[in-house]
Amino acid sequence: MAFRNQSGQNGLAIASAEGQFRGLLSGDADFPGTLEQLINGGMAALKTAAERLSRGAVVEPDRVMVLPPLPMPGKIVCVGLNYVDHSIESGFAVPSYPTIFARFASTLVGHGSAILRPLASDQLDYEGEMVAVIGKGGRHIAKEDALDHVIGYSIFNEASVRDFQTKSPQWTVGKNFDNTGAFGPVFVTADELPAGGKGLRIQTRLNGQIVQNATTDDMIFDVASLISILSEAITLSPGDIIVTGTPSGVGMARNPKLFMKPGDVCEVELEKVGVLRNRIEAEQGKTAPQRALSA
Amino acid sequence: MAFRNQSGQNGLAIASAEGQFRGLLSGDADFPGTLEQLINGGMAALKTAAERLSRGAVVEPDRVMVLPPLPMPGKIVCVGLNYVDHSIESGFAVPSYPTIFARFASTLVGHGSAILRPLASDQLDYEGEMVAVIGKGGRHIAKEDALDHVIGYSIFNEASVRDFQTKSPQWTVGKNFDNTGAFGPVFVTADELPAGGKGLRIQTRLNGQIVQNATTDDMIFDVASLISILSEAITLSPGDIIVTGTPSGVGMARNPKLFMKPGDVCEVELEKVGVLRNRIEAEQGKTAPQRALSA
Repeated sequence: MAFRNQSGQNGLAIASAEGQFRGLLSGDADFPGTLEQLINGGMAALKTAAERLSRGAVVEPDRVMVLPPLPMPGKIVCVGLNYVDHSIESGFAVPSYPTIFARFASTLVGHGSAILRPLASDQLDYEGEMVAVIGKGGRHIAKEDALDHVIGYSIFNEASVRDFQTKSPQWTVGKNFDNTGAFGPVFVTADELPAGGKGLRIQTRLNGQIVQNATTDDMIFDVASLISILSEAITLSPGDIIVTGTPSGVGMARNPKLFMKPGDVCEVELEKVGVLRNRIEAEQGKTAPQRALSA
Repeated sequence: MAFRNQSGQNGLAIASAEGQFRGLLSGDADFPGTLEQLINGGMAALKTAAERLSRGAVVEPDRVMVLPPLPMPGKIVCVGLNYVDHSIESGFAVPSYPTIFARFASTLVGHGSAILRPLASDQLDYEGEMVAVIGKGGRHIAKEDALDHVIGYSIFNEASVRDFQTKSPQWTVGKNFDNTGAFGPVFVTADELPAGGKGLRIQTRLNGQIVQNATTDDMIFDVASLISILSEAITLSPGDIIVTGTPSGVGMARNPKLFMKPGDVCEVELEKVGVLRNRIEAEQGKTAPQRALSA
C-alpha cells in the first residue's frame, strides 16, 4: 500500500497475515523504493522489500492518505465488454476481439479518496475490475508465456461518465474525467494468487448493496489472452497496468438506472486481494451554465 | 528539434530563418534543458533557450537521429473525424462532439525514423495532422481563453492499422502499434503562427504523390474548441499534446485502397511549421503464423 502521511511524506506498507499494515517512509534508511522501482527490480526486489517493510512501523490506513499503488503507469490499458453478461447488458454482441481503451493517469485516485461526480454530468457509474500489473515487458508474447509477464494484481473502480462515454464513437472522454479511476489499495504479487487471477470473486457494493457479483472466471479474454493479444501490437513495459473489464450490473443497464451521487460509498472487493472503498463527492465549482455566463 | 548525435548524446537545436539548425548538447554548459523542461518554464524559458541554441554549433538533421519533440507526453490526446470530408469518407456523420482517443507514448517515432508496418497487418494507413502542445495546464478552460494554454505546434503522422482499428468498437489497438506515431521534427512556438494554427495548409505525400491536401480551417472542432471541450472533463497539463485530426484522402477510403508498404516514404507538410518525413519499414521477426507454429 502506497501512502502519504500527515506530514506529507510518502511511504510504502505491507499487510501482515492479520491485516495489520507495517511500512517505511521514503526518508527512512532502509526504505526499499517505490512500487514502480520495485517492479522494475522484479520479484526478488519485491520480496526483499516485503521483508523490510514488515519490520517497519505500524501504519493505520485510516490515518494516512492511501495513494494509487502506481500513480503514473506508463500505460493504463482498459478492457471493455470483457464479461459476457455485461457485454449483452451494454447492447453489444459478445466480442471476438477485446475492446481496448486507455485512461490517462490524471484520472487516478487512491482508496479512501473521493471519486468525483463531475459538474458536467450526473451519470457517474461504477465498474469494479481486477487489475493485472506487468512486471516483465515484451512484445509478441505467446499466450502460454504471458503470465510470466504479470507481477501482481490490484483492484480498480473504473467509474464512467455514461453520457460523455457515448457522445461520440469513442468512449475516451467518459472514461477520463478527473478523479474517476480508483485504484488500489493493495498490490498483491502474482505468486500469492491463482494463476492469471482466475476464479476470484469480484463484487461491487454501492452503499452496502451488492450491485455486481461475478468471478474472474467469467472473463471472455483472460489475463493471458489479453497480454498475448495486446502485445501483438504494443510493447508492454514494467509498471503498465491492464484493467481487465467489469461484470454485469452497472448502473446504466438497470431499470431504473442507478448512478452514483455525492454521499454514496462504493466498494469493490476482489477475493484474496482486498477492498477498494471510495466515497462519491461532487466536483466543486460553478455549474457549467454559470461558467458560461461569467466567461 | 530534439536529436541524438552519433555519440549517443541528446541535444536540442533551433532553425534559423535560413533553415539551418544550430544547437547544444545536454552536456554543454549552457544547454537550456529539454523541450519538456522548457515548456514547464513557459514562453520566457523557450525564448531564452532559442537565444542560446542559436549561438550553438551547426546540427545537420541528416547526420543525427531526430527525436520526437516530446518523447513522453503525459497525454497524447487524438481527435478523430475532425474534418468534414474525412468524417464522411470514413462512413460517419459529421460529429457534434469530438471523437477522442488516446495513444501511448510507446507508439512515437521521430522524423527520419521508420514507421513500422507490423507483422500482423498490411493495412497501414497515413494520417497527416497538426499537433497543439499545451503550455499552461488547466481545467474548465473557456473557449475564449483556450489559446493562452497552447505554447506551440508540431506535426504528426498518425499511422493507423485499419483492420485492427475496427476489430472492436474502440480504435485503440489500431492506433497504438509500436512505431506508428511519427511526431516532429520541429516545435514552433504559438506566437510564430496564426492564432490557433488556423489557415495553415496541411498536405500528406506518399512517395511524392499528394494524398491529403487541406487547410486547418477545415477542422470541425478548432484548437480552442478542443481545449475547452476536453477540459470540461480532464485537467490538461504542460507538455500534453492534442493531435487534432486528419483531413480526407486516407488510403482506406480510396478505391482501390492505398496502404503504406515497406520502402515507401511518407511526408506530412504543415505550412509555416515544416515537413515530417518517414520511410516505411517492415517490422522484423517471424510472421504471425510461423510464431503460432513455433509456440
